Amino acid sequence: MALGNRHLLGLEGVSAQDITVLLDTAESLVEVSRREVKKLPALRGKTVVNFFVENSTRTRTSFEIAAKRLSADAISISSAASSMAKGETFEDTARNLAAMSPDCIVVRHPASGAARFLASVVDCSIINAGDGSHEHPTQALLDLLTIRQRKKCAWKDLVVAIVGDIVHSRVARSNLFGLRTLGANVRLAGPPTLLPEQFRQFGAELYYDIGSAVEGADVIMMLRIQHERMASNFFPTLNEYARYFCLNAEKVARAKPDVIILHPGPINRGIEISSEVADGPYSVIMSQVANGVALRMALLYQLIIPGADGIRGSELIEPAVTAAPARAKVA
Amino acid sequence: MALGNRHLLGLEGVSAQDITVLLDTAESLVEVSRREVKKLPALRGKTVVNFFVENSTRTRTSFEIAAKRLSADAISISSAASSMAKGETFEDTARNLAAMSPDCIVVRHPASGAARFLASVVDCSIINAGDGSHEHPTQALLDLLTIRQRKKCAWKDLVVAIVGDIVHSRVARSNLFGLRTLGANVRLAGPPTLLPEQFRQFGAELYYDIGSAVEGADVIMMLRIQHERMASNFFPTLNEYARYFCLNAEKVARAKPDVIILHPGPINRGIEISSEVADGPYSVIMSQVANGVALRMALLYQLIIPGADGIRGSELIEPAVTAAPARAKVA
Amino acid sequence: MALGNRHLLGLEGVSAQDITVLLDTAESLVEVSRREVKKLPALRGKTVVNFFVENSTRTRTSFEIAAKRLSADAISISSAASSMAKGETFEDTARNLAAMSPDCIVVRHPASGAARFLASVVDCSIINAGDGSHEHPTQALLDLLTIRQRKKCAWKDLVVAIVGDIVHSRVARSNLFGLRTLGANVRLAGPPTLLPEQFRQFGAELYYDIGSAVEGADVIMMLRIQHERMASNFFPTLNEYARYFCLNAEKVARAKPDVIILHPGPINRGIEISSEVADGPYSVIMSQVANGVALRMALLYQLIIPGADGIRGSELIEPAVTAAPARAKVA
Repeated sequence: MALGNRHLLGLEGVSAQDITVLLDTAESLVEVSRREVKKLPALRGKTVVNFFVENSTRTRTSFEIAAKRLSADAISISSAASSMAKGETFEDTARNLAAMSPDCIVVRHPASGAARFLASVVDCSIINAGDGSHEHPTQALLDLLTIRQRKKCAWKDLVVAIVGDIVHSRVARSNLFGLRTLGANVRLAGPPTLLPEQFRQFGAELYYDIGSAVEGADVIMMLRIQHERMASNFFPTLNEYARYFCLNAEKVARAKPDVIILHPGPINRGIEISSEVADGPYSVIMSQVANGVALRMALLYQLIIPGADGIRGSELIEPAVTAAPARAKVA
Repeated sequence: MALGNRHLLGLEGVSAQDITVLLDTAESLVEVSRREVKKLPALRGKTVVNFFVENSTRTRTSFEIAAKRLSADAISISSAASSMAKGETFEDTARNLAAMSPDCIVVRHPASGAARFLASVVDCSIINAGDGSHEHPTQALLDLLTIRQRKKCAWKDLVVAIVGDIVHSRVARSNLFGLRTLGANVRLAGPPTLLPEQFRQFGAELYYDIGSAVEGADVIMMLRIQHERMASNFFPTLNEYARYFCLNAEKVARAKPDVIILHPGPINRGIEISSEVADGPYSVIMSQVANGVALRMALLYQLIIPGADGIRGSELIEPAVTAAPARAKVA
Repeated sequence: MALGNRHLLGLEGVSAQDITVLLDTAESLVEVSRREVKKLPALRGKTVVNFFVENSTRTRTSFEIAAKRLSADAISISSAASSMAKGETFEDTARNLAAMSPDCIVVRHPASGAARFLASVVDCSIINAGDGSHEHPTQALLDLLTIRQRKKCAWKDLVVAIVGDIVHSRVARSNLFGLRTLGANVRLAGPPTLLPEQFRQFGAELYYDIGSAVEGADVIMMLRIQHERMASNFFPTLNEYARYFCLNAEKVARAKPDVIILHPGPINRGIEISSEVADGPYSVIMSQVANGVALRMALLYQLIIPGADGIRGSELIEPAVTAAPARAKVA
């Protein structure tokens, strides 16, 4: 499941070097979205298909913007309008898309393993944009980028607490793999029903009390309570959950003074995070979203252009483009 | 709520000069959509997000075409696919979109005030594409453009009758503000339940009889009976409404001989307007739609490019573009 | 209903010469989708509206990719988001779209005749992407292209068996017209309830037994059992249908040794075609999909650019484009 040159199916097994190259590229692309002319010619004539069998605003939009800012043609397909509604298998739908010669298919699917399966049946690059409760690697990469921008110490000196519905969270799993590979210390916290013992094998410490988990933490990553993916009742009520696990100012006070707080969104205010904290000075949630576009630009570029792995963002820039006048005039 | 340089939230408070600049720019852009190569480079590298929490064909399509003809990247987000379905607040969804560095968010929303609220929480330009029963300023501007193209007299010499469900109509409100600011005489007509006395304060004359309202009018603007926005019964039946307020040839005959008839669409044939009139020689409904693209091109351009307020459409044109051959050949 | 220079409403009445020109152009465009830079400037500044009142993945995506690879602006409109949900007539929706100056509207609609009707009320080019059980000409053209690529003999020496729900199939009708015009021998096969006698008038032979129909055939074209378009029960059960009409290896063995097998998709595995056959060596289903993009590029180009009928694909290519470096560098 390594990145290699073709797919990003998950962060499990991806090397620290591959991750670092991606973060470096993304870092140099962050400023592209702040320019007057937010457009690079790097993927002109390439086709990126966003194939979303599960609803999504931010991830689908982030990939679409990333593709367009690199001048690729972006095509979006949602489950509702798909032939799968006519009884076609997922494999057949995917092979049909692949037959139209896309350079990359970005896939979100409710079934764990869907992205890997796709990579085994089609020819083009596959990016996993979230598959069931398995992995959501681009979310983890943008989280890593956001952490690296704010924390100047080495990864091995960082304590990251991930709090919430661990067992169902593809975000938690991808972050766990990425953070452990880079050497960070990872604490997982949640009610026992949502935090199985098996997670210790990945090198994480488990906490059933959020207070202890965030004690002295450099980074707190809150997870969304995903009603839509919870098959049965894992805790008595949302209120009960919020009472014990909602991140509020009091709990934040137990972390390091320069703690940063992440959340993959969409947030449930008052359930897993208080508005005071989500909108407060330690929150970097909006930076995560901005970094998401840069990270996905870096990833699309590196997967689609052969041999581009070591490239830096500045090399993506054509002088003609950066020099383009914001306001065209008659000669 | 003035236009200023950043937002268009409504026409209430927008100056006659700002309106005139917009109409002038739009006027010069009308011919772009008639060219062989309907494309200007003006907004290359800019991102326009169409965020439609309410369904729409013509307005969403019109904005998307306008953005693309100016070479902007256009991203469309509908409510159905949005994270709001997962319980995210409108503000959080909007802030997330804004974090991806769009240059402009075009928003349609069922709640009055939604666009203004958005402008208060995000950084980029906001265009109101219809918010509840509050305003729909781009519709009014394209109506003003359509009127100005056909009527060569001064605004103060024009009599405009707006007929239908006034109280629920954002189109009526925006037109009322725009027309009054430019100096036109405005008559509002509808059943008393749909035409509150308070509208007199904006300088309109009120009529409860369509025949008197259109008597000697230069312009008749019919409104759509919006079933989906009518909370309760404001008139006995649609047939009853049609009998008294449907614009038919007999009623048109009471207006000026060169009257023009507008409707924002989608039209309910036989309810507020007869097919004979909608498709007849006085109807300028299709011109309204064509003008909508030009008007939205002008607006996007003026909001997104700083200092562009006084520009004329001809300045948008790069020689290289106008000279582009319609049919490429091997050298 | 001839192609002429403006519309493609069906293949009934389109000349062999027009079909051949389209296939020749498409043939030369096939390789564009295999290039590093899959983009030609041919339709820059043109607007293509995909107006899909019926759901579709492959056809809508195929047209969208085709338009974008020719540098056109592509706008997609689905029925769900359309004003038709607000009670607007199909004609009014179409006229509104046309007023925004698209160069071509691609329409799919559940009513037979919808595309032809559209062509009668709007100004721009219309492409029928499937109307009820009437015609689906671009599917037939891509089928013809796929057959021509694999079979080097003259059309008159080919035996093509079309099998399944003939009476409801727009794909069958369009292929029947196209194949007969080119001179091929066409056999139609299906249960008597789905294969009316009247089809003989178009020059087809009728078979009520699939085994006899495929005997010695060069091409077998299987049709999808379209549950969603079948008004009542035309056969006892799906199992019953599958037992007699499912194309399996045993039946394929009765065809020519170099038979090719087509299916328009989405396929119902185990109903009209066995997985063994669909994924087997005679299947050209994925080639059909790939050819679909090339065929639609050819068609969009020939309809939109006046006088382009005789053009070959190589003439579409600008040296500047083919020479564009896949990877941009700092000068």
